[in-house]
Amino acid sequence: MGDLERVPVGVIGASGYGGVQLVRLLTDHPKLELAYLGGDSSAGQEYSSLYPHLGHQVQQMIEPIDLEKIADRCQAVFLSLPNGLACKMAPTLLEKGCKVLDLSADYRFSDLDTYTHWYGLERDDREVAETAVYGLPELYRDRIAEAQLVGCPGCYPTASLMALSPLFKQGLVLTETAIVDAKSGTSGGGRQPKTGLLLAEADNSLGAYSVAGHRHTPEIEQICSDLAGHEVLVQFTPHLIPMVRGILATVYATLRDPGLVREDLLTIYGAFYRNSPWVKLLPGGVYPQTKWAWGTNLCYIGVEVDPRTNRVIVMSAIDNLMKGQAGQAIQCLNLMMGWEETLGLPKLSFYP
Amino acid sequence: MGDLERVPVGVIGASGYGGVQLVRLLTDHPKLELAYLGGDSSAGQEYSSLYPHLGHQVQQMIEPIDLEKIADRCQAVFLSLPNGLACKMAPTLLEKGCKVLDLSADYRFSDLDTYTHWYGLERDDREVAETAVYGLPELYRDRIAEAQLVGCPGCYPTASLMALSPLFKQGLVLTETAIVDAKSGTSGGGRQPKTGLLLAEADNSLGAYSVAGHRHTPEIEQICSDLAGHEVLVQFTPHLIPMVRGILATVYATLRDPGLVREDLLTIYGAFYRNSPWVKLLPGGVYPQTKWAWGTNLCYIGVEVDPRTNRVIVMSAIDNLMKGQAGQAIQCLNLMMGWEETLGLPKLSFYP
Amino acid sequence: MGDLERVPVGVIGASGYGGVQLVRLLTDHPKLELAYLGGDSSAGQEYSSLYPHLGHQVQQMIEPIDLEKIADRCQAVFLSLPNGLACKMAPTLLEKGCKVLDLSADYRFSDLDTYTHWYGLERDDREVAETAVYGLPELYRDRIAEAQLVGCPGCYPTASLMALSPLFKQGLVLTETAIVDAKSGTSGGGRQPKTGLLLAEADNSLGAYSVAGHRHTPEIEQICSDLAGHEVLVQFTPHLIPMVRGILATVYATLRDPGLVREDLLTIYGAFYRNSPWVKLLPGGVYPQTKWAWGTNLCYIGVEVDPRTNRVIVMSAIDNLMKGQAGQAIQCLNLMMGWEETLGLPKLSFYP
Amino acid sequence: MGDLERVPVGVIGASGYGGVQLVRLLTDHPKLELAYLGGDSSAGQEYSSLYPHLGHQVQQMIEPIDLEKIADRCQAVFLSLPNGLACKMAPTLLEKGCKVLDLSADYRFSDLDTYTHWYGLERDDREVAETAVYGLPELYRDRIAEAQLVGCPGCYPTASLMALSPLFKQGLVLTETAIVDAKSGTSGGGRQPKTGLLLAEADNSLGAYSVAGHRHTPEIEQICSDLAGHEVLVQFTPHLIPMVRGILATVYATLRDPGLVREDLLTIYGAFYRNSPWVKLLPGGVYPQTKWAWGTNLCYIGVEVDPRTNRVIVMSAIDNLMKGQAGQAIQCLNLMMGWEETLGLPKLSFYP
Repeated sequence: MGDLERVPVGVIGASGYGGVQLVRLLTDHPKLELAYLGGDSSAGQEYSSLYPHLGHQVQQMIEPIDLEKIADRCQAVFLSLPNGLACKMAPTLLEKGCKVLDLSADYRFSDLDTYTHWYGLERDDREVAETAVYGLPELYRDRIAEAQLVGCPGCYPTASLMALSPLFKQGLVLTETAIVDAKSGTSGGGRQPKTGLLLAEADNSLGAYSVAGHRHTPEIEQICSDLAGHEVLVQFTPHLIPMVRGILATVYATLRDPGLVREDLLTIYGAFYRNSPWVKLLPGGVYPQTKWAWGTNLCYIGVEVDPRTNRVIVMSAIDNLMKGQAGQAIQCLNLMMGWEETLGLPKLSFYP
Repeated sequence: MGDLERVPVGVIGASGYGGVQLVRLLTDHPKLELAYLGGDSSAGQEYSSLYPHLGHQVQQMIEPIDLEKIADRCQAVFLSLPNGLACKMAPTLLEKGCKVLDLSADYRFSDLDTYTHWYGLERDDREVAETAVYGLPELYRDRIAEAQLVGCPGCYPTASLMALSPLFKQGLVLTETAIVDAKSGTSGGGRQPKTGLLLAEADNSLGAYSVAGHRHTPEIEQICSDLAGHEVLVQFTPHLIPMVRGILATVYATLRDPGLVREDLLTIYGAFYRNSPWVKLLPGGVYPQTKWAWGTNLCYIGVEVDPRTNRVIVMSAIDNLMKGQAGQAIQCLNLMMGWEETLGLPKLSFYP
Repeated sequence: MGDLERVPVGVIGASGYGGVQLVRLLTDHPKLELAYLGGDSSAGQEYSSLYPHLGHQVQQMIEPIDLEKIADRCQAVFLSLPNGLACKMAPTLLEKGCKVLDLSADYRFSDLDTYTHWYGLERDDREVAETAVYGLPELYRDRIAEAQLVGCPGCYPTASLMALSPLFKQGLVLTETAIVDAKSGTSGGGRQPKTGLLLAEADNSLGAYSVAGHRHTPEIEQICSDLAGHEVLVQFTPHLIPMVRGILATVYATLRDPGLVREDLLTIYGAFYRNSPWVKLLPGGVYPQTKWAWGTNLCYIGVEVDPRTNRVIVMSAIDNLMKGQAGQAIQCLNLMMGWEETLGLPKLSFYP
Repeated sequence: MGDLERVPVGVIGASGYGGVQLVRLLTDHPKLELAYLGGDSSAGQEYSSLYPHLGHQVQQMIEPIDLEKIADRCQAVFLSLPNGLACKMAPTLLEKGCKVLDLSADYRFSDLDTYTHWYGLERDDREVAETAVYGLPELYRDRIAEAQLVGCPGCYPTASLMALSPLFKQGLVLTETAIVDAKSGTSGGGRQPKTGLLLAEADNSLGAYSVAGHRHTPEIEQICSDLAGHEVLVQFTPHLIPMVRGILATVYATLRDPGLVREDLLTIYGAFYRNSPWVKLLPGGVYPQTKWAWGTNLCYIGVEVDPRTNRVIVMSAIDNLMKGQAGQAIQCLNLMMGWEETLGLPKLSFYP
């Protein structure tokens, strides 16, 4: 297939880690091509001045953000910007016929009041927001395929929901008992320098943050409530881990039926994810390492049941910048284009 | 005070990380002196051949383990050996008048059947074992002061119990809801080389292990049951973190009284640990970093309440080899000798 | 192209890091297929029991090493074994018509006495050894294309020679001044557990080893001497770095012509590597980070001249397990098969 | 000794890593007490809001920088500020009778033109600068003891000079052959957030920077020239290592006398540092690990001779924030006060 047949896409917000993943993934994708690299403060620079290692593969300049031009040039646009900016751009891009995939929180909430409550931003694009689909293909594959606007999930919600969804969907657990103890590498904090993310501060150490108040909580709860059919509260605690990439979500919940054993749960998870090529359910007794998912769009899941406490413990591991961000966005676009959802995405990490 | 007045102590099992912490701490202790360094496979070597960095401070040889000689030379003996060895040596040492502090699991259980069940080892020293006191000074200070034999807690139980104890002792939580999600640096796995502990394997990664089956679970439950006054089950999940030292225990439990707020909990914890100089309760909204405890005998505790879920979340951070092992053993010996429990132990980390 | 048209290859020594790289790379190669996975102590196990993360992609069993069977099934064989074993197997495999790529030191030396001197092993396969070509394609591309037996370079020599070769080949430096200060991640030490490679030991630290006596020294010198046309001694010092993958070689040498400036050197390096698609020469003032090469077969090179001291400083960065080991072996096989040397090899890292 | 007898000292620039080391070290020093903590942007804050882990030990507020007040309250002042600020404050403090120890580059150069050339700052305090002594006690112990103003060395020069000094002082090497390949943890870059120092960027990677142009070069050369008795140029290349603390300097130089062997060099180094309690010369064949020096004021030195190339290779390891910064400053003040130079400084790391 010649390049002329490739679908041209744009990336707005190219300088951050989300942007560079998208750029990287697009170099390998057989049916997409990067037609626009847009940035604000970085406009006018060669992309390789920000990321010298890919100078031999990416010669593009970062252009100023001009929605007209972008829509002219691109069939689909990835918005990789701080919260509150996508909602200013998406309506225009959609109007001009672009498919839009937003990596920020702007289009993740079916109820914009929840968004305004947790993010402190007012919104005036309710009609557009109502058309957005939550970009977790393992749950909303069909709706994503029909969507023009996808609100791609955060990295923590992706890891958490991959572990939680079968439990809530199948009504296996007492909903008020669900706890997500999540651990993330520091790349989740972005490329803007902050003291707490310095190697000197974050290495050799470990701590929780935003306990009982992290913004990803309502996002997790929204989807769990949707799956359960009633309002659900989830305890979510993020921790910063001295590593670059990767999230592990350790999920705890009390089983409704104390007779269920590990093999039952494995069977249920296996069925739930039967048509999900990016989910790898591990055999009994094997628990995921985040490194296994490094640089791939995979989600590894391990399941355990504790007959003493009647709890299920589920562990899911993803690469926070891939399945937790850019890889999943491309997985969504694959679906929106009617392609295989695995197309052009990396399937196997290098190890160790 | 001249060296003649110092109390001579022995360390058996000097080659591992527990041993080298003890040796290191003894170089600074004003009232103790190292009189015997015993090892098995390492006997006959200079200690500095194992740990060259302390060659200028420690000139001792590792001697074969000869209980007669040890008892002749030492008033107190630290046993830093694999499980199942201390119970062969402690009876003799006690008989000869030594105080014994065991860092293995052998003397941590009031019910030896629990020990045999989880460790797979039969025991024939029940009478001696009954005299052992669990070496967590913040809970059993008075009994330790009277003891001849102390079973020093494991690193995970120490971190977990520091967070859990006020909750169980004061009956603040629904006991069946307690979950400990624990994270440890790899030094907890010891100095014997194992594939999973290689830097190439463990760095840049994160995973749970021994889910629903870790041996430290019954140890935590024994003490929680003692505090609660009835049998308690605790969910305990350990994770291996890509760092050398440190444990963080993130503890979850549902409050009995939904009206309690964070400040209430901080008051209760403050009172519980009022006379515990090694516990540092953090102000509201500050959560501990394991690095803060690095190289010290401190335990930092942060407390949060989630009014949405009615849960308390407590985080405790220790150095797994200090408060989680060797430092705490010396804290115990300080009490057994009638000294200040802070004597000779490091109080402040270097940062970063 | 159907699988029937793929060239079947074998990997002997599948359990180590070299083996798992080869297996991983073969899953992506469009013209090769893995037909035999051979091991000794691991024979009879599923490969995914050693590396669970690739269970969904690699279902093969590890088979005992049976040279007959291997030769029946494979057109080419990678030997990824400890030193001294390949020389027992290669003659048989070659005789049966297999192409052989050895990742150990056995076939790297044109003078077997040098091998015997540094590795302490006698050899009785001189005739076979004489047919071996040193597998550094950037220097010996044509000879590799004709070879049946390739001795693939060590990771340190690859990094060192990529930086040194233009200097020696073009006679730019005083040969006795060449110094290689090399830094490697710990995966270079292999998967066999050793105390010094534990995360607890190697993390947060840095040190040199085998100073003035590392076995890779004669390998570097042999090639430099070949390029220079006379015997050359090189100072080589390896350091262990607290990271998993990657080698940086910092090379120092005094220029013969004090008038040369950085741009001259960049021109010379550019010309030298003009036809080497895996070498990425960085613009003036940009120096390579090992992470840029992570998971790729690339070698990034930065060049600097110090007019004050009249020295050239060249830095080369590779992934020690890829361009430094398995990737380069496949690059060689590509040449031996008459294919593009870039075929099926990863060209761009994920960052960060 | 009561606190009334302690010497009151001030720390200006308390918020950075240099500041927090000084504060930490002062909590343990038996004859010094912290009487003033001065900062600019951080003035008015509690110190523990910057460094919560030491809240239980340090209750001081950060005060605005008021030289009058400082001089009233303090006998000695540590200036831990960016380059170019100390030279504005030191003259006033000296005039008022304070001893001044500057941790910046301002008072390290005997020739201020060199300073102006490399740091781009004009100076108008030449008379004061001429009274400054370079604060490396192992070389200038006697002059430091008499000084009122000490320019404390940078971390790289300290590590480099500890390795180089015996070679230059004793005329053992061809001076034009000296090369320092230095490796530093990222804490050397300070606590101000910069992209390149983020864990996400710096972890798992390694690279050189400021090649042939680092500002520490003239500082190293000044002292080497002083020792050699003639002008000396030194090749200095710094590398950023994925670890928090520590510097390793690997030094190469060609011996004048090809007959010297390792034992000769060890003898010479031993004699050179005989009266230097902070230098630990390692036995033949043992090379230093930076971790050994962690949290101490020690410098570990290993020496090797390569008879093949006639080169000496010396490795020195320090904690960049201790012997490389704050610890050494206190070592200097000990000397200036007429005390033992070891007073109150940590002598032994925790390991691992």
